[in-house]
Amino acid sequence: MKHYNGYLIDLDGTMYKGMECIEDAPSFIKELNNKKIPHLFLTNNSSLKQSQIADKLTTMGIPAEKENIFTSSMATAGYISQQKPGAKVYAIGEQGLFAALEQEGLSLVEEDSDYVIIGIDRQITYEKLAKACLNVRAGAKLISTNGDIAIPTERGLLPGNGSLAAVVTTSTGQLPIVIGKPESIIMEQAMKVIGTSKQETLMVGDNYDTDIMAGINAGIDTLMVFTGLTTEEQLAQYNAKPTYTVHTLKQWLDNI
Amino acid sequence: MKHYNGYLIDLDGTMYKGMECIEDAPSFIKELNNKKIPHLFLTNNSSLKQSQIADKLTTMGIPAEKENIFTSSMATAGYISQQKPGAKVYAIGEQGLFAALEQEGLSLVEEDSDYVIIGIDRQITYEKLAKACLNVRAGAKLISTNGDIAIPTERGLLPGNGSLAAVVTTSTGQLPIVIGKPESIIMEQAMKVIGTSKQETLMVGDNYDTDIMAGINAGIDTLMVFTGLTTEEQLAQYNAKPTYTVHTLKQWLDNI
Repeated sequence: MKHYNGYLIDLDGTMYKGMECIEDAPSFIKELNNKKIPHLFLTNNSSLKQSQIADKLTTMGIPAEKENIFTSSMATAGYISQQKPGAKVYAIGEQGLFAALEQEGLSLVEEDSDYVIIGIDRQITYEKLAKACLNVRAGAKLISTNGDIAIPTERGLLPGNGSLAAVVTTSTGQLPIVIGKPESIIMEQAMKVIGTSKQETLMVGDNYDTDIMAGINAGIDTLMVFTGLTTEEQLAQYNAKPTYTVHTLKQWLDNI
Repeated sequence: MKHYNGYLIDLDGTMYKGMECIEDAPSFIKELNNKKIPHLFLTNNSSLKQSQIADKLTTMGIPAEKENIFTSSMATAGYISQQKPGAKVYAIGEQGLFAALEQEGLSLVEEDSDYVIIGIDRQITYEKLAKACLNVRAGAKLISTNGDIAIPTERGLLPGNGSLAAVVTTSTGQLPIVIGKPESIIMEQAMKVIGTSKQETLMVGDNYDTDIMAGINAGIDTLMVFTGLTTEEQLAQYNAKPTYTVHTLKQWLDNI
């Protein structure tokens, strides 16, 4: 079995379910740490900061430093910086997005921006959407941190980032560049951070449509674990299969 | 030339341009009044009340009573009432929409609604959009007062109602029933109000894509006037032509 020099790891359904740790997650991460294998936790969540997500993991007994967290907001900031260092951006989002943009040294503006970024913003206003539309009509490129159309909550499925971005797309006709899983941009940005090539990297996740498709779209191998959303029966319906499948991450420990 | 017993008349580009009255508009309306021909001013604007629009017209010298105004909000309320009298609705919008719903005796609820209505709302919040999605996912039918994707303002094109409704459509997958021009529902509701049949009614407007298409979609004759958006050259590109065209409404006075 091939060994991988870098791991990209999904969170919900792979490391935990809601507030509950998945049984073999801590030993899986400990083994990566023992072997000093660089890894990042990859999340489409654009609202939280690295430290907030790391805290959640460590509270559950999963070893995680702030530096192990990679969000769609960070991938967005990294992508823009690569395209146009010091770009002017108009952003709609929450603290995780603004922290990532600041960390990358991008300048926040209200008009004449190079990019308009839409992250989930539960304080969205008409004025914010209006400014986004005006910037896009004036020539800014539209970016959506992720394309998730709905967020699962205890109240039910609430509007996700992809549905907020639809306001700007519908009004201006401009389709967004989407950063998060299953798009390949977040994968490419994450590999830049851990410094591994496509050939040496493995993507681990439970959700076929986001995690596994992200690996396939980025041309990297995938390990699918059946502790989350996609079942073995559902997987049978898909033509493009993950490189490996396991029922729990314990089955993979010897391959690390 | 055929005479019509009822007129449906567009406002912007037909009666006025922005804050400026179009020259022959007052005499056109006065002639309808002289001949006692029932008519309604038809607008996709869902935010204003009848009295606010009537005031704007009379200030410009165009005779208009509150009862001559028919908005997409009123058409929405009339349509729902016809489908399900006393229906429970969850509505996002401004005062024109809430006034129309109240006038029609529909009950406003926060959950378990029969319909979710989206009108333009410049006080939109995530919570309002969240409730709209939850109601639709629980079985409510989605209605958009109009499909306008952008609103012209002095700042530029800002998000219209159709782009706000796109949040709910993108998140839930449910396409809205659209009421305003160029859809036929507003036309059918307007004819109910003035009590004329399709054969006796004429739609007057300047915008091919909304006014003339509304007439065509509803199966009623159309009079296109070149005082607004669509030019004679642009009209040449379209296959389905208006029934009549004039350069100014003065040319039509003898046919009233």
